[in-house]
Amino acid sequence: MKKIAVDAMGGDHAPQALVEGVNQAIQEFKDIEVILYGDETKIKQYLTATERVSIVHTDEKINSDDEPTRAIRRKKQASMVLAAHAVKNGEADAMLSAGNTGALLASGYFIVGRIKVIDRPGLMSTLPTLDGKGYDMLDLGANAENTPTHLHQYAIMGAYYAENVRGIKRPRIGLLNNGTEESKGDPLRKETYQLLAADSALNFVGNVEARDLMDGVADVIVTDGFTGNAVLKTMEGTALGLFKQLKRVLSGGGLKAKIGAFLLKNDLRGLKKTLDYSDVGGAVLFGLQAPVVKTHGSSDAKAVYSTIRQIRTMLETDVIRKSVVELSELEEEK
Amino acid sequence: MKKIAVDAMGGDHAPQALVEGVNQAIQEFKDIEVILYGDETKIKQYLTATERVSIVHTDEKINSDDEPTRAIRRKKQASMVLAAHAVKNGEADAMLSAGNTGALLASGYFIVGRIKVIDRPGLMSTLPTLDGKGYDMLDLGANAENTPTHLHQYAIMGAYYAENVRGIKRPRIGLLNNGTEESKGDPLRKETYQLLAADSALNFVGNVEARDLMDGVADVIVTDGFTGNAVLKTMEGTALGLFKQLKRVLSGGGLKAKIGAFLLKNDLRGLKKTLDYSDVGGAVLFGLQAPVVKTHGSSDAKAVYSTIRQIRTMLETDVIRKSVVELSELEEEK
Repeated sequence: MKKIAVDAMGGDHAPQALVEGVNQAIQEFKDIEVILYGDETKIKQYLTATERVSIVHTDEKINSDDEPTRAIRRKKQASMVLAAHAVKNGEADAMLSAGNTGALLASGYFIVGRIKVIDRPGLMSTLPTLDGKGYDMLDLGANAENTPTHLHQYAIMGAYYAENVRGIKRPRIGLLNNGTEESKGDPLRKETYQLLAADSALNFVGNVEARDLMDGVADVIVTDGFTGNAVLKTMEGTALGLFKQLKRVLSGGGLKAKIGAFLLKNDLRGLKKTLDYSDVGGAVLFGLQAPVVKTHGSSDAKAVYSTIRQIRTMLETDVIRKSVVELSELEEEK
Repeated sequence: MKKIAVDAMGGDHAPQALVEGVNQAIQEFKDIEVILYGDETKIKQYLTATERVSIVHTDEKINSDDEPTRAIRRKKQASMVLAAHAVKNGEADAMLSAGNTGALLASGYFIVGRIKVIDRPGLMSTLPTLDGKGYDMLDLGANAENTPTHLHQYAIMGAYYAENVRGIKRPRIGLLNNGTEESKGDPLRKETYQLLAADSALNFVGNVEARDLMDGVADVIVTDGFTGNAVLKTMEGTALGLFKQLKRVLSGGGLKAKIGAFLLKNDLRGLKKTLDYSDVGGAVLFGLQAPVVKTHGSSDAKAVYSTIRQIRTMLETDVIRKSVVELSELEEEK
């Protein structure tokens, strides 16, 4: 039985979206057990699952504007903090939250704890490509600075994830850079390039450019947390901006445009959906003792369900322990 | 009379797009003179302007896949190289090219020459916002690494450009960062934040996130060349990906979708247009003795015309000399 601790109080639609996602997951997967942390009365309003689910009541929660490290220190009874402690104490195998990302990262580092061989855990998501296959990218912003060794570790963790959780044989690893030639980039990129090229266990395909990400140039993209964060937020901002503009064009046009927009309603919704990556789960804080997964603050029940499915696969394939073994061997070689 | 040297042989549609853009500009602006560098026979096929325009013939040109520095050293008679020398020798006041960006940067550094007080020239473009006003961002990739002093210089140059060329009073300067709080970012961001906040001549509005760029959070955004390059390429890739997907949705749908798409044809073309920033000109390599401007490789005549208009405004407002004065004073204060 896989035990998953769920912070029921984080995110824009808590606890409803969280609880409804759990209902669906409990029904679908007979090998999981869920512990919900949060306001018992509110949780019970939505909870229909009756087996393999329990509630640990607490009144305290971390808000989206709380200062992360201070919040997890002071709010010792917050739903997110209790869920993290459950993982630390072995009462749960993994945790999920839709709440304050910074506080979740801090809970991961300071409560769940990092794997000894990993210097700096990195945030990883599966992002959309036009062919629907997607790619895993890390670090998406857990760190403001990274070294070549960190990026090498991300490549190994990303490869394990892509292979074990997403079922991609010999995943292609790309290094995000400002050009595709080997000589490109700053010292961080140049040194990382050499480390990745020298690691024969990796299927390193060289430098890739941000322009080509949606075309699926690689299965795993490694970058430092500052750049990863900027790239992810640029994608979000550009996509959102284009959708706003599209909406304006459709509603601001004449009668012809209005009829056209009406006829296309479902297809345009489909467009938004193909680019919506909530379906592939949440962002994994990789490098911790156990899976700690962040689903988007605006997640609905379906996104929560998908994230539980993702966590279940991570536990089933034992991806964390496997990458730890690989990384420890790397450490010994040094 | 403002003299502009145009590399007629660079870009996907050379020399036609370049020459046709020049025809239009010569007709529109009576105070400019253009020198076209390239294949005289080919240029003459498209040249209709008869006054204030001359051709300097050369058979040599730099290709898009040439290694930049080597190309400008070996191809001494290339159209781009000759145009740069014309600026250096005072035969022209500014230059324009749609060719190899790296080679143009190298021509700028090594032939036109940088301004003494500027350590590292930066590439700047005006990028689109949803309200149509746009913002100037630099460095977009002239450098792989930058220091806080470079970023401070970019803020000053960007502010001068926004105020003088785009007519924005007290332009708001934002620092691209991984969060909006003052404490965010790596050491480069933290130190730059302090420099910008301490410079009372700047209207510094603090840190901005990549997610908010299209919403117009600032008039000038400063960042290092590596991040700027990644952000710009992510925007291009995301926008292009969404348009591909939109096209697929529209053509792949049923009869209803096809009729809808037909009715919306003009409006959707309008959407693409609002996001097309060729209208505001090209990318300026800022920090050189004279305006060196890169227009996109795929530029059409209209984009070339817009870039010439932009160069004319830069010369008219004397933006480079003005920012040099400001920067020299800054240097003296140290």
